[in-house]
Amino acid sequence: METQTVTLQTPYLMNAWYVAALSTEVGPEALFHRKILDTSVLIYRKQDGTPVAMHDRCPHRFAPLHLGKRIGDEVACPYHALQFDCSGQCTKNPHGNGQIPKAAKVRSFPLVERHGFLWIWMGEAEADLDRLPDYRPLDVGHENGVAYTYMHMKANYELIVDNVMDLSHIDHVHGEIITTRGQLSPLVPQMREGDERISARWEWKQTPAMLIFANFMPDPAAEARMFFDITWAPPANIQLSVGATQNGAALDLEHCIGQYDLHTCTPETANTTHYWFATRRNHIEEDGDFNKMKIQAMHTAFETEDGPIIEAVHGEMGTPEFFSLNPVLMSNDAAPVKVRRLLKRLIAAESAAA
Amino acid sequence: METQTVTLQTPYLMNAWYVAALSTEVGPEALFHRKILDTSVLIYRKQDGTPVAMHDRCPHRFAPLHLGKRIGDEVACPYHALQFDCSGQCTKNPHGNGQIPKAAKVRSFPLVERHGFLWIWMGEAEADLDRLPDYRPLDVGHENGVAYTYMHMKANYELIVDNVMDLSHIDHVHGEIITTRGQLSPLVPQMREGDERISARWEWKQTPAMLIFANFMPDPAAEARMFFDITWAPPANIQLSVGATQNGAALDLEHCIGQYDLHTCTPETANTTHYWFATRRNHIEEDGDFNKMKIQAMHTAFETEDGPIIEAVHGEMGTPEFFSLNPVLMSNDAAPVKVRRLLKRLIAAESAAA
Amino acid sequence: METQTVTLQTPYLMNAWYVAALSTEVGPEALFHRKILDTSVLIYRKQDGTPVAMHDRCPHRFAPLHLGKRIGDEVACPYHALQFDCSGQCTKNPHGNGQIPKAAKVRSFPLVERHGFLWIWMGEAEADLDRLPDYRPLDVGHENGVAYTYMHMKANYELIVDNVMDLSHIDHVHGEIITTRGQLSPLVPQMREGDERISARWEWKQTPAMLIFANFMPDPAAEARMFFDITWAPPANIQLSVGATQNGAALDLEHCIGQYDLHTCTPETANTTHYWFATRRNHIEEDGDFNKMKIQAMHTAFETEDGPIIEAVHGEMGTPEFFSLNPVLMSNDAAPVKVRRLLKRLIAAESAAA
Repeated sequence: METQTVTLQTPYLMNAWYVAALSTEVGPEALFHRKILDTSVLIYRKQDGTPVAMHDRCPHRFAPLHLGKRIGDEVACPYHALQFDCSGQCTKNPHGNGQIPKAAKVRSFPLVERHGFLWIWMGEAEADLDRLPDYRPLDVGHENGVAYTYMHMKANYELIVDNVMDLSHIDHVHGEIITTRGQLSPLVPQMREGDERISARWEWKQTPAMLIFANFMPDPAAEARMFFDITWAPPANIQLSVGATQNGAALDLEHCIGQYDLHTCTPETANTTHYWFATRRNHIEEDGDFNKMKIQAMHTAFETEDGPIIEAVHGEMGTPEFFSLNPVLMSNDAAPVKVRRLLKRLIAAESAAA
Repeated sequence: METQTVTLQTPYLMNAWYVAALSTEVGPEALFHRKILDTSVLIYRKQDGTPVAMHDRCPHRFAPLHLGKRIGDEVACPYHALQFDCSGQCTKNPHGNGQIPKAAKVRSFPLVERHGFLWIWMGEAEADLDRLPDYRPLDVGHENGVAYTYMHMKANYELIVDNVMDLSHIDHVHGEIITTRGQLSPLVPQMREGDERISARWEWKQTPAMLIFANFMPDPAAEARMFFDITWAPPANIQLSVGATQNGAALDLEHCIGQYDLHTCTPETANTTHYWFATRRNHIEEDGDFNKMKIQAMHTAFETEDGPIIEAVHGEMGTPEFFSLNPVLMSNDAAPVKVRRLLKRLIAAESAAA
Repeated sequence: METQTVTLQTPYLMNAWYVAALSTEVGPEALFHRKILDTSVLIYRKQDGTPVAMHDRCPHRFAPLHLGKRIGDEVACPYHALQFDCSGQCTKNPHGNGQIPKAAKVRSFPLVERHGFLWIWMGEAEADLDRLPDYRPLDVGHENGVAYTYMHMKANYELIVDNVMDLSHIDHVHGEIITTRGQLSPLVPQMREGDERISARWEWKQTPAMLIFANFMPDPAAEARMFFDITWAPPANIQLSVGATQNGAALDLEHCIGQYDLHTCTPETANTTHYWFATRRNHIEEDGDFNKMKIQAMHTAFETEDGPIIEAVHGEMGTPEFFSLNPVLMSNDAAPVKVRRLLKRLIAAESAAA
């Protein structure tokens, strides 16, 4: 007797840009592969550096193309050497009379390189660049002022979005470095809702400032005014700004010591997630050692503090259907719940249109 | 393609006391956790030592509470620090205005500490202490005369109950230490059936006595009269007495060199089981080194002799439904089959009442 | 996420001879066990060396018999010592009055030792020796001229048959040792179809001959005429002959430097396969060191070159139903597709007759 698991078809938002990889993850010669929304994807760069993406599966006998060979801008299957150009069209068949079967075509996916990431469009609708959020602040400034990292999580992606949308967790989950000393939890964030955007904002005072900023304050030990401002955009992007000041300046990155971050998730499957964050700071931007230390500290904080809790929640839930478990909702859930509900509506609308 | 073992929804007897842990497994400061009947359970001791149990899942965002913090007699969730008392009632919400949501309650489970074990009641009916079997002989005597051990088994719990209810296996599975030298298998045990109790008794002679007792006999090399007497009580407890004598004494623990044991199983899932046994002997009770050696030998015998066979049987069966495989039944199956049938009736009665 | 298990009725051809083991895998005293067509099988040799096979499951409490004991030509269950003869009949019951329950019988399987293999018949129909293909050339010649190897594959068996039936892959998958230098792929093989047999033949010239043969040619660096000739027989046997010559000789093993191979697969499950090959060469037949080197090289080539691709294809397909994925078929697929279709017809005919 054989058994097979049937995975329920989890409804992802398909007509959307997901991060497929960091720009730096795909080298000039690589045949990079990653599973995205349950589909095997091959990513490589043409000789001019342009990244391309296609289904990582030969249409002949289904061998993964990333096990094959680069031939100029094309890729040859590892099994019988059918060769495909970067649009997925078969260009060479070494078998028989060499005629190329009409069906010998691999599905290719629109791929765009922006803000240090490769963004992929997995849906059937035409790729729409207007739906790619604008994260240009990551691009502006010294190269040692920005850093990126990647993590693989054994959890549904919406749990990771929840974690960032509800920043009240930081006093409870994290250590001294980014604590608000209990100031954040009592606050009900100010919400803003836009066209497929949900934002939340917290403002508070603490003494001293978060330790990631305190040393850059005029008086490191004294009280500071601080803010968090986050904006979700579909499918799973959260832009987070955080800053501190000790004068009467406006609470924004132009006037505060702070940083501009992007958190972004891509479902690998319903139960596993690719998770990246990027961070650009507006202080000691040229210090490469500090830059390395900072991204490593953020990576470690997530991997050792948020990550184990999120994966444990995923294991305990046993389903991606959060609301089916009747969660007790509180004031700090306002933002993540709005995101879950909007995402559900967007997915439903997409399904209805299909 | 993914494959996994077929898990059937096995109906457990719910309104019953299961062992959750040894008393010694739950230290004074610990947030101990264990999956019991497919449910995550948190167990800890109040500052006065009283053990308590509750669902190991925060009702807010489903984080396991055992990852949180002890705060006096309470526990705070690791994720957003909701705090719960040992009845599962939320006592503190650090978010927003601090109001405690009405639904912020964790299910708690009745837990009783007796005979060196923590016993849990997972059912919906009111916990009934009269249904907790009386194993007081474990408590009476020198502390070096009793010992306990725990094993985790990759097998359905009923297979472990079968193993103890049919002691005819010992001549075939075990080595010299506890052999009856072939005397047991030909015997049809005397059965006794009581109110939710099933007992079996074997009496025989062998030369010498079982080696675990022979050295305590007047003439270690000579023939001895021996007995086994076992009593099953639901859901999965088997009290086993065994003894030997070389005079005309009654075959009971009052008159023989012997021991009073408890075997008890708690399903973790349909395919995995928590298994404990306890043993109190009535000879050299003060010898601590002997005590350690003895429980270690029992543990090792099970782990290396019974255990691999039971797990192999579980793997070969591929289902917990023993009778669905049309087993050939023999005289030695009388006791385990009576237990399986009574347990099935009790579970059916419970389901019918619900 | 909820997962459901679904029982797939995997369509194996049942009334057929499958290889169960190499003759050398089952020593004189061994209780050898292997899962074959989803069934646990015990194989051992009687004291006169005759191999026998039976279900590796005691009908009493389902313990695997291979964990038990050999007693002359019989086997005793590890759990309660029921003893079975090599026809599967229970011959001894040490329990109760010793009467042997009528149902105490283990299913035995016809097993035949031929050509260095043990062949098993798992079907319900009477075993038919006429359906065992004749591979006597493996038996004829010096003992150092023949070698055997076994591999376990995480792939459906039909993918392995495909690989051998379409030899066009060798220029793309393998290194210098067995390349045809691109001569094979353009050829459409000559097909022959017989009574439940499908054959394909390739003839070509290359310079030099395949390196496995070149050093045995009159002029190792010069052009050679070569051939492959393969014949599939159900369920999953492929006899492959390959040779080279530099004179006008007929392209067959009588007149060429070459070898006579057998590739044979036995499904362990729908997702895993036992795979063996045997090879007999017609040159330096007495050289034992060369013989060891040669089979090791063939084994390594498969394990490091074909194997990873086939397992990756299996993983990517996610189903054993090859045609359901709409493969693009080409001239080189003629032979494997004919085999898949004939096998499907044979399985369907068998199911219809049952």
